[in-house]
Amino acid sequence: MAAIPDVMRAAVLADPGHLRVEELPVPEPGPEDVLVRVHRASLCGTDLKIRSRAFFPDGGPPPGTFVPGHEYAGRVVAVGSTVDEFRVGDRVVTEAHRGCMRCANCLSGSYTACLNSGRHEKGHRTQGMTVNGGFADYVLNHVSTLHRLPDEVGFDAGVVLTTVGTVMHAFDVLGDLLVGAGVAVLGPGPIGLLAVQVANALGAELVALLGTRESRLELGKIFGADLALDVRDGTAVERVRAVTSGQGVDVVLECSGAPAAVDEALGLVKRGGVIVLVGFFDQPVTADLNRAVMNGVTLHTVRGEGAGSLARGISLARRGRLDTGRLVTHHFPLEEVTEAFDTYAERRGDAIKVMLDIADDPAAS
Amino acid sequence: MAAIPDVMRAAVLADPGHLRVEELPVPEPGPEDVLVRVHRASLCGTDLKIRSRAFFPDGGPPPGTFVPGHEYAGRVVAVGSTVDEFRVGDRVVTEAHRGCMRCANCLSGSYTACLNSGRHEKGHRTQGMTVNGGFADYVLNHVSTLHRLPDEVGFDAGVVLTTVGTVMHAFDVLGDLLVGAGVAVLGPGPIGLLAVQVANALGAELVALLGTRESRLELGKIFGADLALDVRDGTAVERVRAVTSGQGVDVVLECSGAPAAVDEALGLVKRGGVIVLVGFFDQPVTADLNRAVMNGVTLHTVRGEGAGSLARGISLARRGRLDTGRLVTHHFPLEEVTEAFDTYAERRGDAIKVMLDIADDPAAS
Amino acid sequence: MAAIPDVMRAAVLADPGHLRVEELPVPEPGPEDVLVRVHRASLCGTDLKIRSRAFFPDGGPPPGTFVPGHEYAGRVVAVGSTVDEFRVGDRVVTEAHRGCMRCANCLSGSYTACLNSGRHEKGHRTQGMTVNGGFADYVLNHVSTLHRLPDEVGFDAGVVLTTVGTVMHAFDVLGDLLVGAGVAVLGPGPIGLLAVQVANALGAELVALLGTRESRLELGKIFGADLALDVRDGTAVERVRAVTSGQGVDVVLECSGAPAAVDEALGLVKRGGVIVLVGFFDQPVTADLNRAVMNGVTLHTVRGEGAGSLARGISLARRGRLDTGRLVTHHFPLEEVTEAFDTYAERRGDAIKVMLDIADDPAAS
Amino acid sequence: MAAIPDVMRAAVLADPGHLRVEELPVPEPGPEDVLVRVHRASLCGTDLKIRSRAFFPDGGPPPGTFVPGHEYAGRVVAVGSTVDEFRVGDRVVTEAHRGCMRCANCLSGSYTACLNSGRHEKGHRTQGMTVNGGFADYVLNHVSTLHRLPDEVGFDAGVVLTTVGTVMHAFDVLGDLLVGAGVAVLGPGPIGLLAVQVANALGAELVALLGTRESRLELGKIFGADLALDVRDGTAVERVRAVTSGQGVDVVLECSGAPAAVDEALGLVKRGGVIVLVGFFDQPVTADLNRAVMNGVTLHTVRGEGAGSLARGISLARRGRLDTGRLVTHHFPLEEVTEAFDTYAERRGDAIKVMLDIADDPAAS
Repeated sequence: MAAIPDVMRAAVLADPGHLRVEELPVPEPGPEDVLVRVHRASLCGTDLKIRSRAFFPDGGPPPGTFVPGHEYAGRVVAVGSTVDEFRVGDRVVTEAHRGCMRCANCLSGSYTACLNSGRHEKGHRTQGMTVNGGFADYVLNHVSTLHRLPDEVGFDAGVVLTTVGTVMHAFDVLGDLLVGAGVAVLGPGPIGLLAVQVANALGAELVALLGTRESRLELGKIFGADLALDVRDGTAVERVRAVTSGQGVDVVLECSGAPAAVDEALGLVKRGGVIVLVGFFDQPVTADLNRAVMNGVTLHTVRGEGAGSLARGISLARRGRLDTGRLVTHHFPLEEVTEAFDTYAERRGDAIKVMLDIADDPAAS
Repeated sequence: MAAIPDVMRAAVLADPGHLRVEELPVPEPGPEDVLVRVHRASLCGTDLKIRSRAFFPDGGPPPGTFVPGHEYAGRVVAVGSTVDEFRVGDRVVTEAHRGCMRCANCLSGSYTACLNSGRHEKGHRTQGMTVNGGFADYVLNHVSTLHRLPDEVGFDAGVVLTTVGTVMHAFDVLGDLLVGAGVAVLGPGPIGLLAVQVANALGAELVALLGTRESRLELGKIFGADLALDVRDGTAVERVRAVTSGQGVDVVLECSGAPAAVDEALGLVKRGGVIVLVGFFDQPVTADLNRAVMNGVTLHTVRGEGAGSLARGISLARRGRLDTGRLVTHHFPLEEVTEAFDTYAERRGDAIKVMLDIADDPAAS
Repeated sequence: MAAIPDVMRAAVLADPGHLRVEELPVPEPGPEDVLVRVHRASLCGTDLKIRSRAFFPDGGPPPGTFVPGHEYAGRVVAVGSTVDEFRVGDRVVTEAHRGCMRCANCLSGSYTACLNSGRHEKGHRTQGMTVNGGFADYVLNHVSTLHRLPDEVGFDAGVVLTTVGTVMHAFDVLGDLLVGAGVAVLGPGPIGLLAVQVANALGAELVALLGTRESRLELGKIFGADLALDVRDGTAVERVRAVTSGQGVDVVLECSGAPAAVDEALGLVKRGGVIVLVGFFDQPVTADLNRAVMNGVTLHTVRGEGAGSLARGISLARRGRLDTGRLVTHHFPLEEVTEAFDTYAERRGDAIKVMLDIADDPAAS
Repeated sequence: MAAIPDVMRAAVLADPGHLRVEELPVPEPGPEDVLVRVHRASLCGTDLKIRSRAFFPDGGPPPGTFVPGHEYAGRVVAVGSTVDEFRVGDRVVTEAHRGCMRCANCLSGSYTACLNSGRHEKGHRTQGMTVNGGFADYVLNHVSTLHRLPDEVGFDAGVVLTTVGTVMHAFDVLGDLLVGAGVAVLGPGPIGLLAVQVANALGAELVALLGTRESRLELGKIFGADLALDVRDGTAVERVRAVTSGQGVDVVLECSGAPAAVDEALGLVKRGGVIVLVGFFDQPVTADLNRAVMNGVTLHTVRGEGAGSLARGISLARRGRLDTGRLVTHHFPLEEVTEAFDTYAERRGDAIKVMLDIADDPAAS
């Protein structure tokens, strides 16, 4: 393995709306850190908000200092003094959140709801959001945020596992097996399409995908959706109820962030069923919540992964039960980060996951 | 004990907006039924919707046939052939729901979300809603819907325990102890005021009551609220956050049904906390649900009691930890059922719980 | 479909240790019952205790009156007056337990722990244990104990699903997804071998099977066990720990009923992990329970299926994820019920599941 | 507040069976630490095993280096660079465990089952067991292990709250409210007597205490036990079943560590109920575990506190619902630590909690 250089390339946040590739010092791992050579990194909707700085209510970090990127995979090149969980050379994938691990929420296992969110000095970090992320040659991770990639999983597929961690957590929060359940997924974006795959792998009896784009619905069928329905024709909810003896599904995953989706979810879910809100809403939602009250429906929410959820996703991938690679539609070198962002933002070429190929590693990916 | 007559007085649903007291046959218990001589019955918001027939999407039962009333207490006067859980003379209180006990929800313990709701032939019954209720001299209950009243609890206090069952279920669904938690209650109606008492009895560290009526907020303080705040001054949410180190409370019970309440609840709740929707909403709700998603907040709902929740409430009452009697503000004989309804509907004399005194029983109540 | 006769063949319990085939009247369905024409029925360890009458502390039913059999599949031939869940001709499989559905346990979803167990007059029934079972041409079931068999699942495979219901419930009680977990199964009997299959289908990362019989361990590997180890060589526990970084597995299913198995389970399980006791113990168990206390280990138990668990198993079978048919090693006509019992009791020909072929139905099985 | 000296008195572990008071340097807080001036510390059974070195399988730390003590309260005298949760002068009480907060168990909230237990370099610490504890003038705590004592709670009562944390966790693990439940407690030691109090405060409908020492059973009654029964007369289990309609209690807490207790617990618990093992067993346990299997009984275990459980206990104490002070039977100065240990070990004067009075603080305790 090559020596670690002193400086590295990094896509840094510049003025609002702009990224540029600059040289930054390679960071040094603290006692609990791992230094990762990034091989692949992918873009997520949050990255678009970071680029526009809409993500930062207070304006965000000074131009030229901050590196986004919270979905990536690579190889361990150095470990902190207390780290024996990983060795140099290990192939790894990241999860975004490290909690402070001293507040009441972190102590009880809800570290993605850390009460010291954003307070780096207390130990909280969100990769590519509150600390530098993976759109660079090297990145620092707390040891608890990394997971070993099995040999069976290449880097392209591996990067997508960060998103699988979020999807898996949406099933985690049910506190139950999924096998035999009826599941509806709203929104065939990357999260929704992965939700179809995961629901299928976990043994759902029925998986219905609802959306508007024909190509995405088709992909949903390939990924195991029993039904893939266009919500615009107004009959989708009824059709799902029809195949569930009029009762609706046990679980609805709202992955679209669309304003009308909560009412659709309420129409799809069975009495006593569960809706999980995974998508971010850009505006207030208007919904007939009385329908939830009258029918004993619970609404869970998911913000990113939960404890153990990425590990579960990796296990599925190792057993060949996920088709994550097919979601990766575009590749760009790091220098073309702006084109990568534009491609993703504008969904050029029906972009689903857009990848930055940062290191060459022909053997592994 | 006096012989059971053939006919009885009953307040029957007449034309929309009207009840009238008529003679009906005393019903006969089937094998799993208990015949109850009603001593006290109280009115609930749902009864108002039943009187106006807004409760019945399809118009409701023919005039003169249906007896409302789902909150009542009395004495057992006859039992069905298989019933050994109760004896004639037992003082009892009711819960509203009997599930079909053969659908997937009933089999797994969620009988208030019965998938055969309204199908009496399959065993489902809701007292005073789908089968005749307690605004009458006698009423039939399935054995599973009755609970023995301890000697320590009079009929007036006992009737209110039906509502305590609903309140308790709002804490049941948390799946956790309440002791030490911060709790906010929105809406100081009967449910909200009982929620203050129950939260206090279960050991909540902080109980904040938010509402608009001064007299009700005062009552909340008497019932153990640490804070009783008027939401109209716009600072209530901030004040609750201030006393919780800026973090908000662990649990919010929405008991008002007010359109703005969900956003208030989202403002009150801690990251990773729980909102329980108990109040019925008469209209669609608009709320910043993204705040729930970003903060890992769960929204549970409660429709009436759950398995075991009324028994828990009775236990609290027996130990003297509830002050339910103070909520009973008005008494009327059955013949004045219309005045009772009007008093409750118009909140005459700051009516909270309005009681029908159906049988005299000086010894017990 | 042929007319229902008045009398039928049934294997009835005679003197201790004996069954004999007699003529009994075909039972008539009550309002909530379904009459099933039995096609296949299989034997379970409990049936052996029933035959010897060790199952009945008080001696059991009079000779010639009682029909055992709680694992069977067949076709609906008549339904009670309230039953619309099934139609005549439906292919169905049974679960053993119907609770009273009025005690505290049944109301909260734990009907296999019914507090009125054995009290038929209150509605409780256990097929082939407290009411007549399926070793007969016809059997009565409460509607809630039957599930439709999908076309994809033949009767031979279907009968085994009753046992899958128990196995699935052992995973149900974990209250969590299984995907990614390390699982150890003790005892390669029918339950243990199905547990290997189900764990694999639910996405376990590691499935280790421990037992003593070589042929069964081989079968375990075919069914997806990553490790199949002979406990007699004394290194099995260490080998499982070795492949789990020395930590042990997340979940242990004890399916052997062997006296030493609890200590083995305690040696196999991770700190904070869970042991599920599924096997029946014939004698008191001696175990180092302090190891559980020091390591925060929970011991769950399972007695038969739980709400929804058989339906989950059927869903797996429909998707082709179970290989239940391979467990059926022997077939006998009803008249040879004694030979069937002896074959099973003595494990002649390495018998796993021994089947009574009661009705011919070449099209379906 | 006085300046912090360089050296302090500490009771250090000497040869097996001996402690001696020596001078040690006052430790310096790291970035996440708090330095506490100890006011009161109490002895627990584990301290006896530490003194005899039976606690240390490998012999334990060199003589003169190690300070036991994991139950104590005092005042904050210095805080680490990242600590703003506490200020100098705050009165605090400790919990024993700090997890590594990077293993799978810590990340999911089970830090008392830390997979890096004993590895201080990875962040794990158990006060007075793997790092120096509170039998000294000063002690270092990780910030997450301290909780502020309310003004209403003196130091004597406060120290006992560490034990309340363990007791509370035994109720935490039930995942449910306790109100209305029947509870039996086996063993009237400090943990059992506190369990009686906590069960009562949480609203248990029935609290039965079973033990052998008359004086302790009497104390149990004072603390709210409805029944306090001598197990030696052989009728205790029957008497508890008699007052629970023959069904047994919902929850049994085994706090005795006695060999026969598990079978007693199995006799006391209801079908579908829960046993929590809190006491440490010194030897293998022989019990009829089949009774658990046949009745769907779950066995949970508790090793020390869980996340949030001490905070819940403090809240109860603040509201005056615990009588912890009455359990403190003896006081000794630090110099008499050996006499304190002997008093506790030999139960001289019916010792329950034996206290070391380390700092004078007349205003607060």
